[in-house]
Amino acid sequence: MMQQPGRLIGLGVGPGDPELITLKALRLLRESPVVAYFVAKGKKGNAFGIIEGHLQEAQTLLPLVYPVTTEALPAPLSYEQVISDFYDEASLAVAAHLDAGRDVAVICEGDPFFYGSYMYLHDRLAERYDAQVIPGVCSMLGGASVLGAPLVYRNQSLSVLSGVLPHDELKRRLADADAAVIMKLGRNFHKVRQVLEELGLAGRALYVERATMANQKIVPLDEVEPMSSPYFSLIIVPGERWQG
Amino acid sequence: MMQQPGRLIGLGVGPGDPELITLKALRLLRESPVVAYFVAKGKKGNAFGIIEGHLQEAQTLLPLVYPVTTEALPAPLSYEQVISDFYDEASLAVAAHLDAGRDVAVICEGDPFFYGSYMYLHDRLAERYDAQVIPGVCSMLGGASVLGAPLVYRNQSLSVLSGVLPHDELKRRLADADAAVIMKLGRNFHKVRQVLEELGLAGRALYVERATMANQKIVPLDEVEPMSSPYFSLIIVPGERWQG
Ligand SMILES: C[S@@+](CC[C@H](N)C(=O)[O-])C[C@H]1O[C@@H](n2cnc3c(N)ncnc32)[C@H](O)[C@@H]1O
Ligand SMILES: C[S@@+](CC[C@H](N)C(=O)[O-])C[C@H]1O[C@@H](n2cnc3c(N)ncnc32)[C@H](O)[C@@H]1O
Repeated sequence: MMQQPGRLIGLGVGPGDPELITLKALRLLRESPVVAYFVAKGKKGNAFGIIEGHLQEAQTLLPLVYPVTTEALPAPLSYEQVISDFYDEASLAVAAHLDAGRDVAVICEGDPFFYGSYMYLHDRLAERYDAQVIPGVCSMLGGASVLGAPLVYRNQSLSVLSGVLPHDELKRRLADADAAVIMKLGRNFHKVRQVLEELGLAGRALYVERATMANQKIVPLDEVEPMSSPYFSLIIVPGERWQG
Repeated sequence: MMQQPGRLIGLGVGPGDPELITLKALRLLRESPVVAYFVAKGKKGNAFGIIEGHLQEAQTLLPLVYPVTTEALPAPLSYEQVISDFYDEASLAVAAHLDAGRDVAVICEGDPFFYGSYMYLHDRLAERYDAQVIPGVCSMLGGASVLGAPLVYRNQSLSVLSGVLPHDELKRRLADADAAVIMKLGRNFHKVRQVLEELGLAGRALYVERATMANQKIVPLDEVEPMSSPYFSLIIVPGERWQG
């Protein structure tokens, strides 16, 4: 008899507070014989830290270790090629378990489909295997909650932007937004703050590092040390309060 | 001795599937002596339906019943005034419990700070009372998950738009977005689909009604009956797949 392949599960575990996982994600996590997670070399991994307490002895862990920690690589290497090869390999590692009939839960910080690395596995495997995504609380909304900042009112437009965008594009998009969230700060922090200042938005903007995590830090925008802004930080420009 | 006032809790319960509530929201829901919820006249309320199964006898229910179901009112009534008065009154009803030392959990469909009615209570009460928001899985990500649609890749910009926007503004904003979500369809569906067609985006757009709920419906965009599109529906235009 042919082995029935396992299911691929993209499992959102929320923004950091282990209590912000959903009942459904927790159930599927416990039911999955294999738990896969992306992680930087030598690190434990954020998503892993969130769910660690729920793991059981019998579960197989499958760390998918990023080959690089920066997008700037010495020639002839290109980030695009290196990372694409990595996702190909990671997909093979996951597929081996699926082929053997084992469900694989790929745990994802926040939500899997909101800028998550899981999407690259999904794009490679969802056509061949039964794939299911369990949505999670994304970092943007975890951030808004700890900042006490209603994010977007009524018929306002919300723009979610990457801090990696060039100065002028970031500025144009921010100028057009009623409310905005800027992700991927880190080394882009200085540029982002400058754009907010040029637009007169710095006073409205709120900054948080590691929102909902044990080591969360809320710092006034003008007091942030640009060199020390971590990757897990974001800026929110809340929509103007609607009187309603 | 002065009574210590209760806490105001904006409690995100997720997009519809009762299993998509977080552990934290469930714990605080169970610990709250008063459970408040917005609801249309004669309806049960979406958020209420999601958490109903977890309620206990001893809990006080506080329905906050919208005075109107449409934004088009006969003169001299204005929607803005009527709804603003309503939120004032709702705040008083909630404050009465807080003053009596009782915590009030205001349950919210999806996430409280993502276009939620809770924001109008928060704006009125958070300065006087201890207020805390528990983020939830928002409808946009619940929708992406059931559509199997990775929403936004890498450094793409995501625009969240209201279907209420006028044709030209909707068109301009959609044309500028790498990925988009359009909320508040219902009677705006016809206009929204037309804009998508004009931009050549209709083929990429995905439509879902009551995502993650028991009566969820996924319909190809060109087969949707404009007159029957419910309020609880949304359209996703996923970002172009990044090869990565
Ligand atoms: C690759 S994206 C992953 C987003 C994730 N899938 C989500 O749903 O939030 C990484 C970016 O998310 C943001 N981020 C993730 N978790 C965060 C947290 N707990 N606090 C602040 N920002 C966070 C940061 O801006 C970071 O650069
Ligand atoms: C007032 S907003 C509330 C949004 C909610 N706070 C959230 O986090 O998703 C109402 C709009 O959300 C969208 N919506 C909410 N729940 C939905 C669901 N389960 N499926 C599809 N759309 C939904 C619809 O576009 C609806 O018009």
